Amino acid sequence: MDYYALPIANLIDQLSKLPGVGRKTAQRLAFFILEMEELDVKKLSQSIVDAKSDIKFCSICCNLTDTDPCRLCSDKSRDGSIICVVQGPKDIIAMERSRDYKGLYHVLHGVISPMDNIGPNEIKTKELLNRLVDDVVEEVIIATNPTVEGEATGLYLARLIKPLGVKVTRIAHGIPVGGDLEYFDEVTLSKAMENRREI
Amino acid sequence: MDYYALPIANLIDQLSKLPGVGRKTAQRLAFFILEMEELDVKKLSQSIVDAKSDIKFCSICCNLTDTDPCRLCSDKSRDGSIICVVQGPKDIIAMERSRDYKGLYHVLHGVISPMDNIGPNEIKTKELLNRLVDDVVEEVIIATNPTVEGEATGLYLARLIKPLGVKVTRIAHGIPVGGDLEYFDEVTLSKAMENRREI
Repeated sequence: MDYYALPIANLIDQLSKLPGVGRKTAQRLAFFILEMEELDVKKLSQSIVDAKSDIKFCSICCNLTDTDPCRLCSDKSRDGSIICVVQGPKDIIAMERSRDYKGLYHVLHGVISPMDNIGPNEIKTKELLNRLVDDVVEEVIIATNPTVEGEATGLYLARLIKPLGVKVTRIAHGIPVGGDLEYFDEVTLSKAMENRREI
Repeated sequence: MDYYALPIANLIDQLSKLPGVGRKTAQRLAFFILEMEELDVKKLSQSIVDAKSDIKFCSICCNLTDTDPCRLCSDKSRDGSIICVVQGPKDIIAMERSRDYKGLYHVLHGVISPMDNIGPNEIKTKELLNRLVDDVVEEVIIATNPTVEGEATGLYLARLIKPLGVKVTRIAHGIPVGGDLEYFDEVTLSKAMENRREI
């Protein structure tokens, strides 16, 4: 790496720490940045610092936000009696894209995974339970990913929440719309059969 | 894109301007950056600004550098009688990796391409000719890419340089080491045949 001038080598080093960016890609990005307009470079650099410094957890739903409470929690038009529990902030984006769900969210920031030393205290379990004490919430929808850890976290939460008199539901498993039967695994297919509905 | 908090949306926007980074990748990078340590984020952001502000063209060879003249031009152990002319700074990196060439370089920052409105004045032609006036340089190796524009630029430069009494050579075309004959185009193969050597 002796061939590069120090600031370039440093930039390549930093860029190659990003996920999916190897040394070759980092090199291409670095030279692209060197050819960008000075103003655009400043904007890029500033947006990185700003995002990190301005974005915090919402004190209610633990979503990433620049206002507290977040836009979703402070939206009075949303149904405060339902909370959809998701693993990460990206899942909220996906849900919102469907434009179907009008309740509130709760971001766990992970799932219980003993293999990775992540117990119930490492994710936002306590914050979720705190939201259920004042009897406003009637239903909690567990929308963790359909993995072993996601299912286990769902069951764990259900066992904690049910005694509080709150309904706990799980999003449906089955064949995605547009999917091709032959490409799905047997567990998905058996779930799809099990959850079949009359038409 | 209404779903994201403004600083996140802004970061995604900026990242997606980079080459090979679409919205999905930009989103993944943005969330990764939000999860990075504050110090690392600052380092990343700073390295971008620093590279842009500290890197200039070398006043001799037009390579990107943080010192002037650049490390290569000021290296007294290199052979000042040969100049290898390349299209871009990345080509110098590739050449240096071969550890074979010990002369100097000249970076054109492009090739003549009438289709893109790039004439001889848009690339560093004048700077190259200025280096030849004091009769130190004996040979100029044209190492532009073997494209139509690269070849044309090479011929153009040769026509300008030869009258100055300087030898002009072109790097060899042929089959790359480790290449497989059946996968190369007919032009490469005929060049390889044409430039065959006795063994």
